[in-house]
Amino acid sequence: MAEDPIKMHARLKGKIVISSKIELDEETLPIAYTPGVAKASDAIAKDKSQVNKLTGKWNTVPVVTDGSAVLGLGNIGPEAALPVMEGKAAIFAQFADVDAAPICIDTQDVEEIIKTVKYLAPSFGGINLEDISAPRCFEIEKRLTEELNIPVFHDDQHGTAIVVLAGLINALKVVGKDKKVKIVISGAGAAGIAISNLLFHYGFENLCLCDSQGVVTNDRQDLNTHKKEILEKSSASCPIGGCSLALKDADVLIGVSKPGQFTAEDIKTMNPNPIVFAMANPIPEIMPDVAQKGGAKVVATGRSDFPNQINNALVFPGLFRGLLDNEIQKVTPEIKVAVAEAISGMIKNPTSEKIIPSIFEKGLVPTIADALKDFDKSGKKK
Amino acid sequence: MAEDPIKMHARLKGKIVISSKIELDEETLPIAYTPGVAKASDAIAKDKSQVNKLTGKWNTVPVVTDGSAVLGLGNIGPEAALPVMEGKAAIFAQFADVDAAPICIDTQDVEEIIKTVKYLAPSFGGINLEDISAPRCFEIEKRLTEELNIPVFHDDQHGTAIVVLAGLINALKVVGKDKKVKIVISGAGAAGIAISNLLFHYGFENLCLCDSQGVVTNDRQDLNTHKKEILEKSSASCPIGGCSLALKDADVLIGVSKPGQFTAEDIKTMNPNPIVFAMANPIPEIMPDVAQKGGAKVVATGRSDFPNQINNALVFPGLFRGLLDNEIQKVTPEIKVAVAEAISGMIKNPTSEKIIPSIFEKGLVPTIADALKDFDKSGKKK
Repeated sequence: MAEDPIKMHARLKGKIVISSKIELDEETLPIAYTPGVAKASDAIAKDKSQVNKLTGKWNTVPVVTDGSAVLGLGNIGPEAALPVMEGKAAIFAQFADVDAAPICIDTQDVEEIIKTVKYLAPSFGGINLEDISAPRCFEIEKRLTEELNIPVFHDDQHGTAIVVLAGLINALKVVGKDKKVKIVISGAGAAGIAISNLLFHYGFENLCLCDSQGVVTNDRQDLNTHKKEILEKSSASCPIGGCSLALKDADVLIGVSKPGQFTAEDIKTMNPNPIVFAMANPIPEIMPDVAQKGGAKVVATGRSDFPNQINNALVFPGLFRGLLDNEIQKVTPEIKVAVAEAISGMIKNPTSEKIIPSIFEKGLVPTIADALKDFDKSGKKK
Repeated sequence: MAEDPIKMHARLKGKIVISSKIELDEETLPIAYTPGVAKASDAIAKDKSQVNKLTGKWNTVPVVTDGSAVLGLGNIGPEAALPVMEGKAAIFAQFADVDAAPICIDTQDVEEIIKTVKYLAPSFGGINLEDISAPRCFEIEKRLTEELNIPVFHDDQHGTAIVVLAGLINALKVVGKDKKVKIVISGAGAAGIAISNLLFHYGFENLCLCDSQGVVTNDRQDLNTHKKEILEKSSASCPIGGCSLALKDADVLIGVSKPGQFTAEDIKTMNPNPIVFAMANPIPEIMPDVAQKGGAKVVATGRSDFPNQINNALVFPGLFRGLLDNEIQKVTPEIKVAVAEAISGMIKNPTSEKIIPSIFEKGLVPTIADALKDFDKSGKKK
């Protein structure tokens, strides 16, 4: 029987631990600390690039949040976000040997968050942004990516986008369809926008986006610039109205929104052999059995108790392992595609029940990290 | 033969490691991370005090610097400071099981540093400030102490002051003198000011302070408020001129300044059985054998290769262990005295060669931490 989450957290009182790599004794302490350490500091003062050779900066990543969009709980603040950031740090440690430190920032002002992360950058080899609400997260990530020379990655956007693309590549193989498919994305927050953009970059064109007000169309006066950009990129003619309308003749439904958005009847309006990724957590937009009643051929969720768990945790450990090992400074769309293809490539013969590997598959992290060997520091293919 | 410091640092590529406390498997991962972790976050969202029970906040301390006053190397910047902060974090881990994270901040603006540390506070149970230059460090520590409800401790000031007081208590026993002794402090930076203030608090009155311009006296026009405050508190009549002049008829010399400040002749002008703490690193203000030629009865340095090593590392692991375990929010003068007395109390029969324990003495950290059981959250004696 699984342990109650509150009991586990109360028992552990923190899910990560920081230890010394060396036994400090009368011989090693004066080398690792004063006076010997002065030589390492002096070498870095003379040549800043030595910091990656003589310290743990190269392997250390803060998991940064402002607590504004934590899981499905919303804006619960930095303290309440800490258990999630610790969980992420524990995953980084166990699966990828990345030293990750939870950093929960006590401001939700965009400029202050940007400035704070920039001030922290000297100690870190990359930045993992987490659970920051849209559209604020777009500006924060863009500015930090431009202004820092270490990789910046907002997992809620791009981790989700990458793992969705990985799953979609294999799901399309199962149903024998190609990039001409019509895709409906339900949810236009951080994840929905990033998924749309990555799918466009990969070559999909026929895409309708929905938000809480219905389908995103040109007649709407309430669209932010990110939604407008999606509209401009899409070749689809999307109907005005509720999201269910957009499902007619669609091939793929990707849900990153809220529980209970769709019915079996909605799925029946889709093209034959539809693909349904219903990733709202813990309760999907449509339950797998209901989607299947509607005719869905491939169903994936965010949950571990159904087949095809589409989970960011498949991405970020291996991605950061590869970024850090190869000293890559920018996470470009090419890198995101390479990671998605590395993940999908692990499943040699995709089936309805198995389009994506499990986070526990041994080869996952090295396979992703290996895929990044082909990239230079700027994130371009060599 | 000891390892070369550059070689050790290049071999380790980071002196600390962050690990998961639990093995994440198919059963534990959904409890430690989504979806189970949401229960812990929700509990904290409803009652912020739960963060100390359900996360590692209570045991986690950032070692924060701006790289402005690193060891004897000066203003070498945040990257070059990182090996020292890592060394400190390794000591915290090994000796006190405190999870300490190096945070090297890329600004030297006082207000920006204060704001940044305040923004970071939700993740941490206390703040260790390190290697921040005087007089900026005074304002930073004062403001953070006032504005945060977790303990803030600038080690260069108070770690040094506490260990000096600990050593002095026992050195006075060796020479059979009391609080009426005349004390000269060479160095009016972070350490010199903090030592002076703690000695006054403990009951010493007869104290002359020297800076790089000579003895701090009322006729000087170049004194900052911190030096003026020392002057006001002292009952000594200190001579105008170089620091050596102040040594005449003094009983104690405490050096926190620069190598080679004093000669055997200077020590000869002191009262019989003088005490000399020469703590400039790595080269003391006066070498022990020279001080002894001048008649010094008890000599201490910052070095591990001479007897009586006066080292901050004796203080900060046990101090933070005690602060965190007892949820103490302010490091008051009473706490500093309690820690100094706990350290000095470990030496039952002080001698010229042994006034202070070694950092490797097993009982050190628990003895200090135990001494803090007597204090309430505000740092007052219960």
